[in-house]
Amino acid sequence: MKIDLNADAGESFGNWKLGRDEELFPLLSSVNVACGFHAGDPLTMGRTLELAQKTGLAVGAHPGFPDLVGFGRREMAATPEEIYADVLYQVGALSAFLKVRGLALHHVKAHGALYNRATRDPETARAIAQAVRDFDPAVPLVVLPNTPLEQEAQRLGLRTVAEAFPERGYSRDGRLAPRGTPGAWIHEPEVAARRAVQMVVEGRVAAVDGGWVEVRAQTLCIHGDNPSAVEIARAVREALWAEGVSIETYA
Amino acid sequence: MKIDLNADAGESFGNWKLGRDEELFPLLSSVNVACGFHAGDPLTMGRTLELAQKTGLAVGAHPGFPDLVGFGRREMAATPEEIYADVLYQVGALSAFLKVRGLALHHVKAHGALYNRATRDPETARAIAQAVRDFDPAVPLVVLPNTPLEQEAQRLGLRTVAEAFPERGYSRDGRLAPRGTPGAWIHEPEVAARRAVQMVVEGRVAAVDGGWVEVRAQTLCIHGDNPSAVEIARAVREALWAEGVSIETYA
Amino acid sequence: MKIDLNADAGESFGNWKLGRDEELFPLLSSVNVACGFHAGDPLTMGRTLELAQKTGLAVGAHPGFPDLVGFGRREMAATPEEIYADVLYQVGALSAFLKVRGLALHHVKAHGALYNRATRDPETARAIAQAVRDFDPAVPLVVLPNTPLEQEAQRLGLRTVAEAFPERGYSRDGRLAPRGTPGAWIHEPEVAARRAVQMVVEGRVAAVDGGWVEVRAQTLCIHGDNPSAVEIARAVREALWAEGVSIETYA
Amino acid sequence: MKIDLNADAGESFGNWKLGRDEELFPLLSSVNVACGFHAGDPLTMGRTLELAQKTGLAVGAHPGFPDLVGFGRREMAATPEEIYADVLYQVGALSAFLKVRGLALHHVKAHGALYNRATRDPETARAIAQAVRDFDPAVPLVVLPNTPLEQEAQRLGLRTVAEAFPERGYSRDGRLAPRGTPGAWIHEPEVAARRAVQMVVEGRVAAVDGGWVEVRAQTLCIHGDNPSAVEIARAVREALWAEGVSIETYA
Repeated sequence: MKIDLNADAGESFGNWKLGRDEELFPLLSSVNVACGFHAGDPLTMGRTLELAQKTGLAVGAHPGFPDLVGFGRREMAATPEEIYADVLYQVGALSAFLKVRGLALHHVKAHGALYNRATRDPETARAIAQAVRDFDPAVPLVVLPNTPLEQEAQRLGLRTVAEAFPERGYSRDGRLAPRGTPGAWIHEPEVAARRAVQMVVEGRVAAVDGGWVEVRAQTLCIHGDNPSAVEIARAVREALWAEGVSIETYA
Repeated sequence: MKIDLNADAGESFGNWKLGRDEELFPLLSSVNVACGFHAGDPLTMGRTLELAQKTGLAVGAHPGFPDLVGFGRREMAATPEEIYADVLYQVGALSAFLKVRGLALHHVKAHGALYNRATRDPETARAIAQAVRDFDPAVPLVVLPNTPLEQEAQRLGLRTVAEAFPERGYSRDGRLAPRGTPGAWIHEPEVAARRAVQMVVEGRVAAVDGGWVEVRAQTLCIHGDNPSAVEIARAVREALWAEGVSIETYA
Repeated sequence: MKIDLNADAGESFGNWKLGRDEELFPLLSSVNVACGFHAGDPLTMGRTLELAQKTGLAVGAHPGFPDLVGFGRREMAATPEEIYADVLYQVGALSAFLKVRGLALHHVKAHGALYNRATRDPETARAIAQAVRDFDPAVPLVVLPNTPLEQEAQRLGLRTVAEAFPERGYSRDGRLAPRGTPGAWIHEPEVAARRAVQMVVEGRVAAVDGGWVEVRAQTLCIHGDNPSAVEIARAVREALWAEGVSIETYA
Repeated sequence: MKIDLNADAGESFGNWKLGRDEELFPLLSSVNVACGFHAGDPLTMGRTLELAQKTGLAVGAHPGFPDLVGFGRREMAATPEEIYADVLYQVGALSAFLKVRGLALHHVKAHGALYNRATRDPETARAIAQAVRDFDPAVPLVVLPNTPLEQEAQRLGLRTVAEAFPERGYSRDGRLAPRGTPGAWIHEPEVAARRAVQMVVEGRVAAVDGGWVEVRAQTLCIHGDNPSAVEIARAVREALWAEGVSIETYA
């Protein structure tokens, strides 16, 4: 049995450092690299890919809204045409850094408010998926299962990769518990690790509102900007290993 | 006999329009498309390529310094490593818009202060050329002949395309007359046209400081942000045609 | 009888020109000057104030969302704390250009999606109004009447200036007809002029869905980025003059 | 005897944190607050002033080149007119945050490449000084002594405050040792502290090329982005205190 373990990466910007990529990368199997709109800059992208290549990680693009000061976390009323062009631009920019290293684009995952909007809004989902498909129909899109993001991508014939979040609380109806509500975030590495095992081995996780919720996951996401990201990734990795699950990316 | 006729294009930004691309494109054989750092934005890039494709133009990338408010015309003390990454990023972004249209990247030409710095500074020239070569060694770089930009690109084994400027004055030593000096700019379409013919047919042009200067040209540049760009392009085209020179891009 | 006539101004950015400020200014009594977040840049702000001072116009700040490529027209999920700080920053920046000319800040008017959001969302309205009041409690805020923007500003003790739009259709319930619906925009200068007279002299205007709607106006807004802005402003001015209404700003 | 101790502050940007303002502020008497062009953003500016006010620090504006990704450390060929407007804009923006707290603008100090260029180029120096003088002729400008920055500011009638750098090596001719040369940076807090005492009490410091160099200082600068800034500031403060020098800002 195997599962992919991903994290956002390359989230520094110019003189500002963010994340512990050097420590985190050896614990992962894939990374989502910021492309300059919400984080990342050309120099940082090049250095992040150098590190990813050295570590042998699969590299995906992580396009976001054009909002550096808001880190791409503020929803913007961009049109589908704008979202399509913004995603294509960012995927292309990252692809150039991959190309010069002989690496292939492994996947695309939308960032922050763009991802969230796409889990609710079919037009946003379709614009993202269309950009990926037009760029390279063989590249899969990471999605939150059972949302318009998954549905629209599949409708366009794009491969999807279902993602789950061991650090995030889920409600019984399968949705992520809204930030700010009790149980929305898990901080203890052991708890996150136990949940990762539940998700991968049992296909379910304990819900914040009681009982269990089914979870479908081909990749688990660790939040790289979490100060304890490294400890959580290590605990998740070891707990999965102990259950006979290896951390390997999808083909 | 044939010659390429190029102009900068896609220099609008968001709500702000610049240039007369619709009128100018039918008169050209290639365009240099802004990539978002000094002008252009994802939506504009997509629309510019749509127009270029419809017109049958060869499309090159036009990377510049990251300075929107200064339109990439202010020299910046960027390091070679930064310039390499900035050029690679922009070339990659544009390439994505080409790829989704089934178009190939035809050439790269640096913009504004980046181009100018590269005609004087070998390190800048090398950083630009290295980025292009690493991205695709078959893509030629447009250069000002007899400058470090040409020399460094050739040293790296990159194909170069010599560029001349029918609208710009040249001094006897082969350099462009500095902006602001008498004769630095030609405004009359007929004069620009006559100079274009001299450049292409005779391989020389009248110098601002008297006599003639040798000019080597595989492409002639029309400044798209010049209000009379369309008239100049038309006059240049017709004058060349009258001499049996056809406007065709290089392979 | 008198009324203020305002327009957005200083909406160029770097090399990109927008609007016909030179022609429009002599027809107005006040302007709302872009402050660099959605349009405008320091050089443009200085030049716009020079022109406004020469023309004798009252100058207000026109803060918007930090979204140059979207021209501040895309709603952003900024927090009240962010909106407060963004407005304060922009008002302060413009005030420096006023100060060096011996001019006073005459009013503040939010731009685009920020204005629109504030007409629906009390938190947004309060953040804007609080920033203005903290900066200078004597400076009035331009508002759409009968909206949270007016209510929250007044609740904070801020003076408000009711604005009406002779170029925009109103529905019977007093709201602006949504863009894209029939009658949402008036293009003919004479029609806009007739509506301006109705608004100022009769306190009402013909509604897009039949009948009349009451309109309360201390200032009329002309959209400066409208290609026929100058013609509309002239027609409005002349029609009001013919009714004995002079174009003068509020104290 | 007394001396001012300053550091750059508020250099975070959005989600990216930089500097240890909370620990550093109690050791200083004044701060130079980033204004959004090379670092800082409206929210960060407000929070930085809150902290400065709580600590009782004098607050100055720290305008820089518009180059976030380069942190204002890359020289840009901005014109004097552009520099004037950029400085005025940034000083105005910061002043709004001061005004709402009842604080006065204590001084202005240019940042990074803008400061450096002004120590060599009289036109740059004049543009900065003119902007400060036009904004408020009573506000002093922090300068490197015996440079065009000091000379041009004084020629315009502006008060200047001479700055020295206990962490930086000086050559015998009074210039800062270029970055990258041996002795250009002092890393040990005790050495920096000893040099601070030499500068303030003896008016001189040991030169990197042997012997002593005269130093004139009304303020000492600690580099806030130095990882050991807090330790250096503490050592400097204690060493000066032991010599009977109190850390107090200038009026």
